[in-house]
Amino acid sequence: MSSTAGQVIRCRAAVAWEAGKPLVIEEVEVAPPQAMEVRVKILFTSLCHTDVYFWEAKGQTPLFPRIFGHEAGGVVESVGESVTELKPGDHVLPVFTGECGDCRHCKSEESNMCDLLRINTDRGEMLNDGKTRFSINGKPIYHFVGTSTFSEYTVVHVGCLAKINPSAPLDKVCVLSCGISTGLGATLNVAKPTKGSTVAIFGLGAVGLAAAEGARIAGASRIIGVDLNSSRFEQAKKFGCTEFVNPKDHDKPVQEVLAEMTNGGVDRSVECTGSINAMISAFECVHDGWGVAVLVGVPNKDDAFKTHPVNLLNERTLKGTFFGNYKPRSDLPSVVEKYMNKELELEKFITHEVPFSEINKAFDYMLRGESLRCIIHMEE
Amino acid sequence: MSSTAGQVIRCRAAVAWEAGKPLVIEEVEVAPPQAMEVRVKILFTSLCHTDVYFWEAKGQTPLFPRIFGHEAGGVVESVGESVTELKPGDHVLPVFTGECGDCRHCKSEESNMCDLLRINTDRGEMLNDGKTRFSINGKPIYHFVGTSTFSEYTVVHVGCLAKINPSAPLDKVCVLSCGISTGLGATLNVAKPTKGSTVAIFGLGAVGLAAAEGARIAGASRIIGVDLNSSRFEQAKKFGCTEFVNPKDHDKPVQEVLAEMTNGGVDRSVECTGSINAMISAFECVHDGWGVAVLVGVPNKDDAFKTHPVNLLNERTLKGTFFGNYKPRSDLPSVVEKYMNKELELEKFITHEVPFSEINKAFDYMLRGESLRCIIHMEE
Repeated sequence: MSSTAGQVIRCRAAVAWEAGKPLVIEEVEVAPPQAMEVRVKILFTSLCHTDVYFWEAKGQTPLFPRIFGHEAGGVVESVGESVTELKPGDHVLPVFTGECGDCRHCKSEESNMCDLLRINTDRGEMLNDGKTRFSINGKPIYHFVGTSTFSEYTVVHVGCLAKINPSAPLDKVCVLSCGISTGLGATLNVAKPTKGSTVAIFGLGAVGLAAAEGARIAGASRIIGVDLNSSRFEQAKKFGCTEFVNPKDHDKPVQEVLAEMTNGGVDRSVECTGSINAMISAFECVHDGWGVAVLVGVPNKDDAFKTHPVNLLNERTLKGTFFGNYKPRSDLPSVVEKYMNKELELEKFITHEVPFSEINKAFDYMLRGESLRCIIHMEE
Repeated sequence: MSSTAGQVIRCRAAVAWEAGKPLVIEEVEVAPPQAMEVRVKILFTSLCHTDVYFWEAKGQTPLFPRIFGHEAGGVVESVGESVTELKPGDHVLPVFTGECGDCRHCKSEESNMCDLLRINTDRGEMLNDGKTRFSINGKPIYHFVGTSTFSEYTVVHVGCLAKINPSAPLDKVCVLSCGISTGLGATLNVAKPTKGSTVAIFGLGAVGLAAAEGARIAGASRIIGVDLNSSRFEQAKKFGCTEFVNPKDHDKPVQEVLAEMTNGGVDRSVECTGSINAMISAFECVHDGWGVAVLVGVPNKDDAFKTHPVNLLNERTLKGTFFGNYKPRSDLPSVVEKYMNKELELEKFITHEVPFSEINKAFDYMLRGESLRCIIHMEE
């Protein structure tokens, strides 16, 4: 039992007071974990587009002040009542979506969309009592997707913590908490390309590159990157991309360009942009008879996916995925092992590192499109 | 070798001289089979909606005079050059789509959409020489989907003939040539419901009932039939349907009705109507996390499938199928065995029987919606 167990911890956190304004490092109080909760000392966190999207608060009800952050690695400081799966000292990855273990989704082999702990971006409090564990002088500071990792200590539901190999370097595997696993799993768990197959990846940001990394691991022989920004092509080669198509360079729809390059269509496609046109192209570029298209990107709420149904009758498959179909607690430890076995390469995703006090730089890198992942070191 | 091998055979065939006009039983000449072709003595044939659709010729370029028919059972009379897989006396089911065995589709485990012999409803001649094998006084009579089984003898590409167990009764298993296998395979090969699951079937015609039969065989515990015609519900019980929904009886979309009945959605759905609205409902009624919707019905050429992409991101799968994903030559023999083992029931699909001379009655039964399958006996 740590000496802080059961006590309020005062520590530093990066608080977003207002939409789009730089985070402010504040001293916050972090209450002890309640039933089914765990307090985690965060060692490394990284920044994902979803943090930026909700920090900008252009498309949703704003909820401030809030502590963002959901890609991280840490060590359990203390556990609340009824927590038996974790103990102080365990190494964990907090995840924005959970696995209660008891609902129909958790019991289904096919789903990871837990009824109890499925991502909820509107909620700013803990489930147990509907209150926050963060406060400044008694004023509550809201949580974000149950993780709020831009804090030296955070409180997370036990169902949102993957216990991992303690010898795994947390400054690397922390990126598996969200985007990298999402892209990797979309390919490995959902698209499932066979060795020697041809895979198209739409969107060469971090998630798309992780999808390409999945195709590389699966032994695809042609990995075709599709992006409107040709400057991304050089970097994508490191992730296994063998060819590139910029839709802007062609007069015809990109699905036709891809079909011509591949004698009728690619075997698998993975869409990682969220653009509805890219989704339709990603579906229509797969080969009839066996092609599978996987949608990863999150669309705008008014978008409609539209295609001629004959494209489906010709034995194409269209599937969506959420967090790469990984069940956070059951499956993430094995993804960490893939890294430990050198099957999965994570270093190439990490383009920047900053100390916690300079966390706003991580936002700048991402907003300028310079970074894939920027690791934020909590201990300076 | 039969005494007719290599000779022109004169026999009876039901010729469609004009769109929508009753077929006329004529004496036709059937030329010997050429390379890779087989001449088959048809013993039983049945009528499928596709025959009626192309006979009515409302939606396509008309091609007449033509011999329709593509669900049948027969015996090989003689074989052309290079045919090694079949010999006179073999029992066969002609199929409207083929399996050359050599193309990428035939070599793929996932596809049955053979490049060489895929269904072609516009073609009226044989592939080998671009000519017909049927004629009347030297005037060619066109083929239909390479089968033309409304004739006592027909010529079929060897890749479109499934060799089956000779002890199987051809007056029953002939219905496996098209519609029944299409519905059955859509469920068993594509939707793949697990034991105890809930399956919705859209459209309770012969194909939909075969899809329900597939769900019954798979051990689904709830099979919900959806049809705009409530008079079909009583019959559907024989095919395993346990519940029924007529969308006309509800003010809300049928996908919402089904979601309420099933605590969030069905596990699998199979769409067998071809209506674009039914397709969209069939997709949106499956449960998030694991639901799979399979589209079987053939849409109108101007239809667009439209849904919000979040329905996909929530881990639903949308798949199309063609002929139930069965490879005609490789897989149909085992479907016949399912009937022989009493696993699959075919008798309940056969509602009418007529002698060949009364073939137009089969059209009347179907047009009036009275029949599921009407077996036409070639020998009277």
